[in-house]
Amino acid sequence: MEKGTPALGWAARDESGLLSPYSFSRRVQKDDDVTIKVLFCGICHTDLHIAKNEWGNALYPIVPGHEIVGVVTDVGPGVESFKAGDTVGVGYFIDSCRSCDTCSKGYENYCSTLVLTSNGVDYDGATTQGGFSDVLVVNQDYVLRVPESLSLAGAAPLLCAGVTVYSPMMQYGLNAPGKHLGVVGLGGLGHMAVKFGKAFRMTVTVISSSPRKREEALERLGADAFLVSQDAEQMKAAAGTMDGIIDTVSAGHPLVPLLELLKPMGQMVVVGAPSEPLALPAYAIIGGGKRVAGNGVGSVSSCQAMLDFAGKHGITADVEVVKMDYVNTAVERLERNDVRYRFVIDVAGSQLNAAA
Amino acid sequence: MEKGTPALGWAARDESGLLSPYSFSRRVQKDDDVTIKVLFCGICHTDLHIAKNEWGNALYPIVPGHEIVGVVTDVGPGVESFKAGDTVGVGYFIDSCRSCDTCSKGYENYCSTLVLTSNGVDYDGATTQGGFSDVLVVNQDYVLRVPESLSLAGAAPLLCAGVTVYSPMMQYGLNAPGKHLGVVGLGGLGHMAVKFGKAFRMTVTVISSSPRKREEALERLGADAFLVSQDAEQMKAAAGTMDGIIDTVSAGHPLVPLLELLKPMGQMVVVGAPSEPLALPAYAIIGGGKRVAGNGVGSVSSCQAMLDFAGKHGITADVEVVKMDYVNTAVERLERNDVRYRFVIDVAGSQLNAAA
Repeated sequence: MEKGTPALGWAARDESGLLSPYSFSRRVQKDDDVTIKVLFCGICHTDLHIAKNEWGNALYPIVPGHEIVGVVTDVGPGVESFKAGDTVGVGYFIDSCRSCDTCSKGYENYCSTLVLTSNGVDYDGATTQGGFSDVLVVNQDYVLRVPESLSLAGAAPLLCAGVTVYSPMMQYGLNAPGKHLGVVGLGGLGHMAVKFGKAFRMTVTVISSSPRKREEALERLGADAFLVSQDAEQMKAAAGTMDGIIDTVSAGHPLVPLLELLKPMGQMVVVGAPSEPLALPAYAIIGGGKRVAGNGVGSVSSCQAMLDFAGKHGITADVEVVKMDYVNTAVERLERNDVRYRFVIDVAGSQLNAAA
Repeated sequence: MEKGTPALGWAARDESGLLSPYSFSRRVQKDDDVTIKVLFCGICHTDLHIAKNEWGNALYPIVPGHEIVGVVTDVGPGVESFKAGDTVGVGYFIDSCRSCDTCSKGYENYCSTLVLTSNGVDYDGATTQGGFSDVLVVNQDYVLRVPESLSLAGAAPLLCAGVTVYSPMMQYGLNAPGKHLGVVGLGGLGHMAVKFGKAFRMTVTVISSSPRKREEALERLGADAFLVSQDAEQMKAAAGTMDGIIDTVSAGHPLVPLLELLKPMGQMVVVGAPSEPLALPAYAIIGGGKRVAGNGVGSVSSCQAMLDFAGKHGITADVEVVKMDYVNTAVERLERNDVRYRFVIDVAGSQLNAAA
């Protein structure tokens, strides 16, 4: 049997979630595969939940990472869209069934047998390993083109955080000049929503429980207004003014004060995932015909459109670039939201095989 | 000052909600007004909540009733669309501001100063009184044309129950042949949703907590399938099969098993209003990009479209027609869901001034 590409990564071995060097193999490059040298990989909250088995589905050892930017080093003979040297990205998933109703409609991100980039199970039965590693082998149809004009470290979080907010903004018409967008929570997802909203020439209001985020929302990110969610007077003054809200908060929080900010028939999109159920009183959505939708990342085509849009408007995430040997500290800091706004690992610049 | 039309109705006087005869005046007919002799008026759950001040906004005395069918007896000189003798309907509201963003877009049912047909406050400051009375005076723009081919008693509930399910079915594309609609709860609203779904040539599944409703769902109403919501096996077998769900249940109930019935990006519409908040775990809507929307009745144009559609397809509510002196008993029976599926008061055939 032909041997696959040797790979070096950092993996979690148990529920401590602690990452350490790990040697493994990528699959043998198939006709339609692209081999990618990983340059940068963002650290997403999901990585943290999975590595610690908080969702009960961990397949150890786990190499996390699904916000990947790299460079193509080799392609199979059936690959026409990419060639060695291309700057590419890989996001939350690397394959889907391609035949179900959902895939057929171009929403493969909701395919019931979606193959996740990390801690997933591929159609050949193999456990997938993510971008906290030096090399990836991915089917060409799930590889994205990354505009070379962008900072590649800052582009990495676009592959998950970026598309997770961009995709529902497009889907629900929250991309029109003059419309009023609320962004709840100013972290990895929230700060991307503000940037996209401003690029769409919307009026953007950040809603946060931390008054200390006012300055960064208004000055650093260019939001038009800032509301402290606990300030009932401020919230009341803004009632009924928003066309849509992107709710990125992953801690428990009341929905009703947020729903009151929406105009009639306004759309809330939930992209943060609190562990406790949200309380949704029927009256809060019936009276104004309001809507609450969930969103999970975005399709390949939506992700490509987002990257092209980001390239055109110079949008990247605000990141703190770290080396791989800092990853456990970065995860700890991420857990207490001590990052503005995303950690990105400089994979190519790191010593991966730290152990002797 | 010119005197308005004398009216006789039945009104609730206090939180007992008990109705008794009540004499009052309708406003003097204005240029754009239509005067209507009430023939039939449905009894909606909302009437019951309001009459007992369960929502804390009662303006006693209250003449309930907003599912009204009647005949035009007079029109003002500015009325061109209606003439004496026309069969007409009046629904949940009788005016709106006509100038706000929501009104301008044709969704006046979500106008923030909507004037409700009963227990509302009109723009002149008067408290509005509903259809449990012999005569109404209503601005022509809020009067509906009722197809004369329909049973008028059976048509009355279309004005609220009918449009409340029809309007979101149209809005969310739950009106296409072959699509799969779930209807949760088989009461006044639910049985209308089944009838519209079948008229749209959809596959309709009724979901109910009462196994005893199977026969009426399948045999009487023509639903294609029936699920007992507590039967985990049945529910699991139907997981991921529905394009949309109309949830009419007004008692507390779990949303997650219902959301699991939806296909990816499926749409749930909440039209029942449990008093306790619904529990909405973020994971239940994020994974499949699912959506939960509230809906409150429908616009005038949507209501007219619904009536025209009902006329074409011979759709009316299944009703139990009662006289006004039975109304307190009917309300009691409605409270324990002892009606199949809507009480309608034969107003014109009732003795309204029972007191000596």
